[in-house]
Amino acid sequence: MNIPTNSPELRSWIPVPAKSDFPVQNIPFGVGGADGSDSNCLTRIGDSAIDLAILAEQGLIHAPEHLGGKGAFTGELDALLMDGPQVIRDLRQRLSELLRDDATLNGMHRDAIARAIIPVNELDMELPALIGDYTDFYSSRQHAYNVGVMFRDPANALMPNWLHLPVGYHGRSSSIVVSGTPVRRPMGQFKPAPDQAPVFGPSRQLDLELEVGFLTYEGPELGSRISVEEAEDHIFGLVLFNDWSARDIQAWEYVPLGPFLGKNFASSMSPWVVTLDALEPFRVQGPVQEPQPLPYLRSSGARTFDIRLEVGLTPAGGSETIICRSNFKHLYWSMAQQLAHHTVNGCNVRAGDLMASGTISGDAPDSFGSMLELAWKGTRPIKLNDGSERKFLQDGDTVTMRGYCEKDGLRIGFGEVSGTVLPAE
Amino acid sequence: MNIPTNSPELRSWIPVPAKSDFPVQNIPFGVGGADGSDSNCLTRIGDSAIDLAILAEQGLIHAPEHLGGKGAFTGELDALLMDGPQVIRDLRQRLSELLRDDATLNGMHRDAIARAIIPVNELDMELPALIGDYTDFYSSRQHAYNVGVMFRDPANALMPNWLHLPVGYHGRSSSIVVSGTPVRRPMGQFKPAPDQAPVFGPSRQLDLELEVGFLTYEGPELGSRISVEEAEDHIFGLVLFNDWSARDIQAWEYVPLGPFLGKNFASSMSPWVVTLDALEPFRVQGPVQEPQPLPYLRSSGARTFDIRLEVGLTPAGGSETIICRSNFKHLYWSMAQQLAHHTVNGCNVRAGDLMASGTISGDAPDSFGSMLELAWKGTRPIKLNDGSERKFLQDGDTVTMRGYCEKDGLRIGFGEVSGTVLPAE
Repeated sequence: MNIPTNSPELRSWIPVPAKSDFPVQNIPFGVGGADGSDSNCLTRIGDSAIDLAILAEQGLIHAPEHLGGKGAFTGELDALLMDGPQVIRDLRQRLSELLRDDATLNGMHRDAIARAIIPVNELDMELPALIGDYTDFYSSRQHAYNVGVMFRDPANALMPNWLHLPVGYHGRSSSIVVSGTPVRRPMGQFKPAPDQAPVFGPSRQLDLELEVGFLTYEGPELGSRISVEEAEDHIFGLVLFNDWSARDIQAWEYVPLGPFLGKNFASSMSPWVVTLDALEPFRVQGPVQEPQPLPYLRSSGARTFDIRLEVGLTPAGGSETIICRSNFKHLYWSMAQQLAHHTVNGCNVRAGDLMASGTISGDAPDSFGSMLELAWKGTRPIKLNDGSERKFLQDGDTVTMRGYCEKDGLRIGFGEVSGTVLPAE
Repeated sequence: MNIPTNSPELRSWIPVPAKSDFPVQNIPFGVGGADGSDSNCLTRIGDSAIDLAILAEQGLIHAPEHLGGKGAFTGELDALLMDGPQVIRDLRQRLSELLRDDATLNGMHRDAIARAIIPVNELDMELPALIGDYTDFYSSRQHAYNVGVMFRDPANALMPNWLHLPVGYHGRSSSIVVSGTPVRRPMGQFKPAPDQAPVFGPSRQLDLELEVGFLTYEGPELGSRISVEEAEDHIFGLVLFNDWSARDIQAWEYVPLGPFLGKNFASSMSPWVVTLDALEPFRVQGPVQEPQPLPYLRSSGARTFDIRLEVGLTPAGGSETIICRSNFKHLYWSMAQQLAHHTVNGCNVRAGDLMASGTISGDAPDSFGSMLELAWKGTRPIKLNDGSERKFLQDGDTVTMRGYCEKDGLRIGFGEVSGTVLPAE
């Protein structure tokens, strides 16, 4: 008998600290290794990572032979994503059975699992998948509205297409880095003032963007599409995402083909992928969509998730100020709608592709997901605990984004995505 | 003594038809295999492809051991691109020595090469590299001007940033296909008329874009930049590129984040990568740049190439009409400037990344590189040989782009990139 992996009463025999994002109901996936050793696929309970390659070597877990068998657990997660959600469902069910406190393990199995445990503070994490293509959407209505008010016309802040389709664009895969990687302030070309000639220098308007991304399973071939109803079966799981932005570079370059060097110097990702199945208890209805979208974007039921998000800013040597509290459920367009739209023209999606939400801003001014909005284009500087103020990021600032769901005593979280700003070079 | 591989008097002992794009001075690289066999790295003389894995197996050519040794010639070209231009220079020099009519080959060697030859009409070609990231520039001044006149303001057709930086954006890697792959007309959302509500259906404005792309060597790590002076040492070679575009989808979606579903249903690439070294005899000065760009974009010397380009359109069952004759040298921004700009913010470039030029339009109306411009937004339909007319592409139309350089009796070319439009599904 399979016990659902997300029942609130389940406990693990591995210790889980209070308020941990990683109880036995989470069973996320990541890739990393202890200092100097090869990287393998991992899961995590509390502050213990568990090396899946070692479990497979001991015969405790299996991957289908055509995906690589035992070899599927070395390196990135890509091999496990080639066949759709059932492989990951079976794996999470089996891991739950092994890691729950009611597990019937013989001594040899318990020893094998103990040998596979790596304390997370000894781990070097990597990106969980080889990200082929990265797409960034623009799915928060409040964010699109705020930007429209600041840069265009308050009376027509939303572009005419915005309520009809999930606007998105392609980003850069090569510069996506895992949480903890320092981010160098970019050099670039920008106009110091609208009536001045462009100059070259370090960006003066370095910003963060609070986003959540999802990784995909291998999709159908080029020329096929994924319907909005089947879209969730193509989503492996979610991560936190900081889409660092240089607003001055972006403002000068982006017309008419969109953001480019204002974004592609770095994007930071949390290392643990939380599956849609783990998030199931936190499913909620999204915002009412008016006008009703075209049929290919229509879906029924609860299509989003109540994920609490926050952004902390820590100056060099200082203490953290939480500068934003937002929620994934504020997004107007659902992940299913994003994926259905992305593929409706036949565009193909591959295992490990990343699609990010765009900046997640709620209605309240302290829920805005970027410093551009929080400080309202520099007119309302953000106050930090140490008395200093910020319009944009300073060198040495560390940005940390966190996300978790909580309901009926069950907490499922993402950990964090963090990065420190290095001076331009 | 090394004889320069591009001396006009060199001949191969392998037959080269008159007007071939592939004399022994070209020595391009591609990936493919005869029907059903594994794909290997190839070069080409006339209509004969030569399997480099077989030459390596026989000890006739070598790759450095740290790049995989003999194994470097199986599968895509990526392994050969990890170390910069010298590996490819050495390889082309050695191949030239083996394939020239003055080669001193013993019988065994000549037999080995003969066994490595595959007639090109028996080949299935693939993409030459695993393209991690694909960037599309917008570097033809006439094209940017034409689009500005048609869609915005004839008095201010060029955007204010256009003369200051090579505008570019990220495209989709997953949907890049090799020449010969049919292209399905995309479905999508568009407005049939400005005052009408958006509808969903097959694109009614399917277009081609005549472009040339370049593939890169592995670059420095994230946070570094490539200067305009060193940029050409990071360019492996060039291909022809058809950036198919659905104008109606693009027009409705692209504000403010740029083209997305109007482009990412397919982009077609020619299979043979022609190296910068092979193009060296055709180097020419680019257009005068006024205003002078910022110092990081300034370069001296001849930074572009005289590559003649043409586009043929063949209706189903009909004969071909050449609808455009253009030239790579019309581009305002050079490849070196594109690459220097792309990395000036620290963005990293990996082996096999693709950067395309954007539509290449010259001054003359028959040199415009898209049907949008050739038929001037449908107001001047293109006349075909069979008496029919085109504003945009019809189902069954085949688009073929060709490119070659010719000077002092030496012709170096790209072959073609071709694709047939399938009806929407």
